[in-house]
Order: sequence, then structure tokens, then C-alpha cells
Amino acid sequence: MTDQDIVIIGCGAGGGTAAQFARKTDRKAQITIFEKGKYPQYSKCGLPYVISGAIPKPSDLIEFNEEWFKKARIDLHLNTTVEHIDHKKQVITAKKQDGSVIKKPYTSLIIATGAQPTLPPIENILKNEKPINGVFTLRTLNDAETIQSFIKKDSNATVIGAGLIGMEMADCLHTKEMNVTIVEALPMILANTLDKELSTPIQDKIKENISIYTDHLAIAIESKDNNITSLTIKDKSTNETKKIPTDLLIIATGTKPEIFLSQQAGCDIGETGCIIVDNHSRTSVENIYAVGDCTEFKEYITKRPVRIGLGSITVRQAIAAGIHAAGGTYTLPDGVLQTCTSEFFGIEIASVGPSATVLSDIEIITGKHIGSSLPTYFPGGKPITLKMMINAKTGQILSAQAVGVNAAQRINTYATAILSNMTIEKFRKLETAYAPPIAPTLDVVTLAADIAAMKLDRKQRQ
Amino acid sequence: MTDQDIVIIGCGAGGGTAAQFARKTDRKAQITIFEKGKYPQYSKCGLPYVISGAIPKPSDLIEFNEEWFKKARIDLHLNTTVEHIDHKKQVITAKKQDGSVIKKPYTSLIIATGAQPTLPPIENILKNEKPINGVFTLRTLNDAETIQSFIKKDSNATVIGAGLIGMEMADCLHTKEMNVTIVEALPMILANTLDKELSTPIQDKIKENISIYTDHLAIAIESKDNNITSLTIKDKSTNETKKIPTDLLIIATGTKPEIFLSQQAGCDIGETGCIIVDNHSRTSVENIYAVGDCTEFKEYITKRPVRIGLGSITVRQAIAAGIHAAGGTYTLPDGVLQTCTSEFFGIEIASVGPSATVLSDIEIITGKHIGSSLPTYFPGGKPITLKMMINAKTGQILSAQAVGVNAAQRINTYATAILSNMTIEKFRKLETAYAPPIAPTLDVVTLAADIAAMKLDRKQRQ
Repeated sequence: MTDQDIVIIGCGAGGGTAAQFARKTDRKAQITIFEKGKYPQYSKCGLPYVISGAIPKPSDLIEFNEEWFKKARIDLHLNTTVEHIDHKKQVITAKKQDGSVIKKPYTSLIIATGAQPTLPPIENILKNEKPINGVFTLRTLNDAETIQSFIKKDSNATVIGAGLIGMEMADCLHTKEMNVTIVEALPMILANTLDKELSTPIQDKIKENISIYTDHLAIAIESKDNNITSLTIKDKSTNETKKIPTDLLIIATGTKPEIFLSQQAGCDIGETGCIIVDNHSRTSVENIYAVGDCTEFKEYITKRPVRIGLGSITVRQAIAAGIHAAGGTYTLPDGVLQTCTSEFFGIEIASVGPSATVLSDIEIITGKHIGSSLPTYFPGGKPITLKMMINAKTGQILSAQAVGVNAAQRINTYATAILSNMTIEKFRKLETAYAPPIAPTLDVVTLAADIAAMKLDRKQRQ
Repeated sequence: MTDQDIVIIGCGAGGGTAAQFARKTDRKAQITIFEKGKYPQYSKCGLPYVISGAIPKPSDLIEFNEEWFKKARIDLHLNTTVEHIDHKKQVITAKKQDGSVIKKPYTSLIIATGAQPTLPPIENILKNEKPINGVFTLRTLNDAETIQSFIKKDSNATVIGAGLIGMEMADCLHTKEMNVTIVEALPMILANTLDKELSTPIQDKIKENISIYTDHLAIAIESKDNNITSLTIKDKSTNETKKIPTDLLIIATGTKPEIFLSQQAGCDIGETGCIIVDNHSRTSVENIYAVGDCTEFKEYITKRPVRIGLGSITVRQAIAAGIHAAGGTYTLPDGVLQTCTSEFFGIEIASVGPSATVLSDIEIITGKHIGSSLPTYFPGGKPITLKMMINAKTGQILSAQAVGVNAAQRINTYATAILSNMTIEKFRKLETAYAPPIAPTLDVVTLAADIAAMKLDRKQRQ
């Protein structure tokens, strides 16, 4: 394998990881990365914590620096934009900052172009020639660096979007002692991660610290001397409007995939608007791979396509792409579990598996239990809510959501159960680890499963 | 099911839980418990934390009080010792504290007699007519209450036995600012829970706080005015002896099962010296069940008999026994995983699956990884060591051990994998939950599995 010439577009977690694993697989392959930004691989998920100060400086987010790529003999071109893929001749054309053009042939191409923030339909929002000061999306290290200069104690920060990033940002800005308001168009926070019965108690708790407007649209930005002064929001049910004083506005309303180059190259685009890839991260075009936020893949239970929007999945796709492009094999499971977690205002949440919406044509049974992190007799136990779903016909475990202590690791147990196609009858009897200062004899993980098992049992006896 | 007459011997976690689940299964069954001690169901595992003060008072350990049993219409006889089982007539004979005798017929009998501490072969140890003051085992609430009166800052406490209970006690006594020494006959601490490569770093760390003598036998107790003054220990390799000044001695060298009644009733006793039970907690004698520390059951992987010594397993056996005795069905998995955890000196440990010794005739491959609890760029990450084993022929996951942050919940993920007979190829690709303040993109749980998978891959290609 000495004639491998692997080209990677994008040096985020996807592109960088693919390069690493290509190098591990083939010590001699030529590996080239083109990255349009000025930084090598850094953690996008860590950006809110640069703003809160939990991570001391923006450059700390860089996981692999230029030196690292050099040592790994990976040819990294920063500030270089790929403009064209000739998939027949297998050559890409890239433009450097100075205007010079590079033509680079490849034997394998890995597309890791990611996604761009979407913007709400507000006039004058980041689009006009002179953007209003104080209005930001959070996608790049540059964004984080600039936002930092707008952090000011007791001034007003507004976040549009109550998804994971919106909630994380709200917490980080609250940490910096700003007056924080969240505006969300849907009737609930965290709609993509938790069911309403789990997100509502969180919303109530967080309201002790910040203002939350659900079911409200952001409709206008007001400014003075080109600095934002307020955001006008509209109640979706009453149509009443309200001005929220705002010195810093963060837009966290989702992303759209960056698929221009892939479309041009003829890669099939799926129903979610992203590049279709298989379990080796291959696109429909020969020798072209794609990974991360620009792709879609099967959801594990329903086998329906879902957009990839999690760093954890991106990294796993990138391992598969890097290894395969370099001549090895690393087959991904037949679908993604979408295991995810986050923490804000001291609350840890996690979930795995398809949402109730995606499962709409499967008859489901839910099991929910609110337990304690410790045995009742041990002081300091904290509540954990765990909700899980099973297929009402087969008893197969489909999904789970948790709020509370070690929600993430508890959900990993469910991720394992889902990946191994486990049924409730077996899982409910799992021997979980018990010790008084650590966990109760019966963990909330299996107690929630017990509820579902008993419901299933009653149903089957009818 | 109105003529059920369920009799339970012992009101520990096993007997109490069996009664509870029998009641849930049959609202009308007559349920009677005979307990020789003076307390209803309390947590034995919580005893060290009464001594440390983490649990304010001994009575806090009582999980279900007499009032509770009364409300559940469970007839609880405290201070009452069952002396005979007539398994043909299905009648037990019990003696109350006042010497009066009860004869009670049963339709189902559940034996939950537990185990008694074993003592090292030292003269005058708890056996003579006038026991030496300051020498204790820790098995009952009475023990904990009496030990409390011997706790004195800056005085000397010695613990014989470096298993989980020994380590927990050492930590608790250290918390009370006593000078603590541990004496262990084996060449390592925690021999039943962790492999030496994982226990040695713990031993080194703990030595900063207390003295540890491994490979040493306790051979004599010295006293003055019937109060212990020192413990003589002997180095097993050099035969050198040493006197350890001791004001309080805790013996935590294991237990032997309480099987006298069961033997008398004709229950088959297995190779571990405990009552053989099946996956409904049934013994070999009709209508007699047994649960907890007096029983043995199959180990899940090897199907070899193992002694039950964990509260978590006892409770699950008791659920099965209680439900089955009351006419229902709750089938336990085909063997125990022995998932367990503990915490001492700020270190959390956990393990699941058979030890290397039990696995001696299976060719195994190990995967070990020392990772961080957080992504490298996020401050505050702490090391976690995870070691796991697979079958070198089939790739099946056999066991795992962890030391560090959330070791218990991480081991629960392995428990799920083992219970579902998962192979390494699938498990290594598990999507674990990732967020910067919570866990890295690739958790140590799968990184250890990756090491084993790569070793297996190399072996298969040879």
C-alpha cells in the first residue's frame, strides 16, 4: 500500500481523526488535509466552556496542533479552500489565501466539511454588509474569541434556541454573571433530546436563574450606532410582542450541512439534505468518503436516515473512513444510537435511541422511575429520573433518557443494551454495581426497566 | 392463592426482600419471618459508614421497620431462633427469647440465614469465656454500636483482611483520625476484586495515609487488663514477627455460610460449602428456597458454582424466591455476574465477571487502558484505569475491572455487555455519551476494548 494518496477536506474532529487513523493503518500513505479556517483540529463542542472560562484560553481547544500533523507526516494546508472535486479524474482544486491554486490528485477523498449555522428569519441578521455588533452564532474558535469581548457582568445576553448548545451557552453566560434570556420557538426546551415530562422540571428549575420564553419567535433586532440594544420576540399563541433588552445575542437554532462540493461531485444526498454514507463512511461516488455533520446515516432501531450532529458519531465515522481509505476495514454498527449528554445549571442529562416522534409507527411501552443516586439510608443521595421505551410486541429496548447524577454513564448502559438488541426481560435483571456511598442495590437503570416489563407482562396476559 | 403460608428464616436484605415481593405477588398469602436478632431488615453493607459517621446513627440503617412489616401484614418475630425444619411435615420449630416454642407450618419456606464471620487462627480471639476488649468482627448492628465506643482520635486501629470490607473499615477509621494498619495474608490487597496490576497503584496511594502489611499473618493478640494492646504479625516470607500497637482490632477475613438448618432439612450443599439453588432460588428440597450469603449459584460465564457474597445478588435472588413462593415467576439469568463496587480513600473501584483464576482454562486476551474522565482539553479530568478480558477464540466479553471516576457505572456497561453475550467487535464500537464537562468522545470503556480487539485481530491474522 505505498501508492495511497488520501485527501481530506476539513480539519475538524472528522477530518483530523480520519487522517490519524489513515496514518495508523498505512504508515506510508500520502495524506493531505485542506482546511479553510486558520486552526487545525479543535473541539467545537468545547467552545461554550471557553466563554465560561472553564477552559482558560481558546487555543486550549486545539487537540492536535500543526506540529502534531507534521510529526505524523500529514500534509496540512490551513486557510485553504477546496473549490472543486473532479471525481472522474480524482483531482481536487483548492485555493490558498494568497489566491494561488493547488490541484491535488487523490486515490481516496474524505469529505468532512461539516455544517453552517442556520439563522432565524430576522432582517439584518448577520447578512447585511455591516453586521450588527453583538450578534453571533457559535461555530468556530473565531466566534468564541469575539464573543469573549462582549461578556460583561450584569449586561444582557439573549440566546435564541433551547437545544443543547443554547442551554450550554445560557449556563456559560449566566456563570459570567450576565442577565440571560432564552427564546425558543417550540413549546419546550431540549425538544430533540428529552421528552416533555423530563424537560419541564428542568425548565422550572432553570427559571430560578434565567428567563425562558418557549413558544416564542425572535422577529426583530433593534440597534443603536450599529450595536444591538434589544430583541423583539412574539408569543406564538397570542401574537403579543415584547422587547428583550440585549447586549449580546447568541443564535443557536441549528445548522445546515455544507454539501456544495459533494453535490457537485455527484454524491447522493438523502432526505435529510445530507450526504448519504454507508457503514464504512463511503458515499455513492467511488473513492469518496464523507463523515460528520454533512452526512446522514441510518438510525439503529428504525433504520431510517438521520442527520449526524454529534461529535461522538463523527469521530467513529472518521475512524471507519480513515482506516478504509488506507486499505483497512472497520465496519460501523448498522445504524447510530445517537447517545448524547450535556450539563447546564448543575443538571446532567443524557439520552440514547430514537425520539418518540421517530418511533411513531412502532407500538411502544414506556418505563419511568425517579430514583435516588444512593440507598435511602445514605445521606446525600440525589434524584435521578430515567425514562425508557420498549417495543410493545417484542420487548426490545429502543431508547432511554436520564436526568441527574451520572446520567451519561447510566445511559451508556442503555446504549449497550440497544446495540446488543437486548430485550427488557433480560435487561431488567441486570446486576448493577452496589455500594452504599455509590449506588443503591437496585439502580434506577433497572427500576425503570422493571416498570416497562410489568406493563408488558400485563399487556401480554390480556 | 389464598392458602399460601410462606415462612422466612432471617430478616436481612434477603429475607426482608423476599417477604416484600411475596406480598406484592399475593395480597392474601400468610407471610411469617423469624429473625434471631433484635432488628428488622437493615443494611449490613452500610455498617462501616455508621462507624465513620457518614450515616448519623445505627438505626438509620434500618430500611424497613417493624411498623412497615405490620402495614404489609407480614408477621415478623424478632429475637426468635428457628431450631428445626421438618421438611416432610413442612413445619418449622422456633424458640423465642423467653424460651417459649413456636411450631409453624409452611407451604413455602425461604431460608435467608446468611453467614458468620470467620476468624484467623489466633488463640483467645473472641472465643474464650471472657473475650478481649477491643476485638471485633463487623457483621451486625450490635457490632457497629459497640465498635463506636472504641473510636478514639490518635489511638491505634488494626484491620485484619484487605478485602472490600477491610478497606472500607480502614478508610472509616482513618476518617475518625485513628492510626490505621491493615494486615493481609495474601501478597496483595483486594485480591478477590482486582488484578494485581490494578490493586498495586491503589495500595501505593493508600500507604500515604495508613500502614499496610501484605503477605503477613496475624498470629497473636496481646492484652493488658483484658484490653487489647497489640497484634503480633508474621512476615510469611521471612518469618520475622512484629508487634503492631492496637487499641481496636477489626477482623474482616471473610465469612462462612450459616447452613446448619438447611443441611438438617436435606438441602444439597455444593462444592463451595453453600446451599445449591437454581434460578428461581429453589433448593433441592421441595418448597424450600434459599437466598443470599448461605447459597451458591452458577457464575454466568463459566457456569461454575460461586458463593453469593454480594447484597445486590441477594436482593435479586430474594425477588425471585419471594415471587415464586407466592405462586408467580421471576426467572433469574443463567448465572451471576458478580458486579461490585466500593470506595475508600477517595478511590472508586468496580468489577464484573469471573476473576482470572476462575477463567484459568479459557484462553483469554486482555485490553487495558488508562484514560481520563474528561477530554484532554477540559481541565479537571481524572485518570481511570479499565482492564477487560475477552475469550481469545470467540471474542466474547468475559470480565472487566475499573479504578477511578464513575468506575461503578462504567462497569455496569460491561455488565450489560456480558449479560447479552456481546462480542468485542460490536462492543468496541459502542457510541458512548460525550460532552466536554462529562466524558471524552471515546470513553475509556471502549478504548480498553479497542486494545483487546486489536490483539484479537493480530492473533486471528497469524
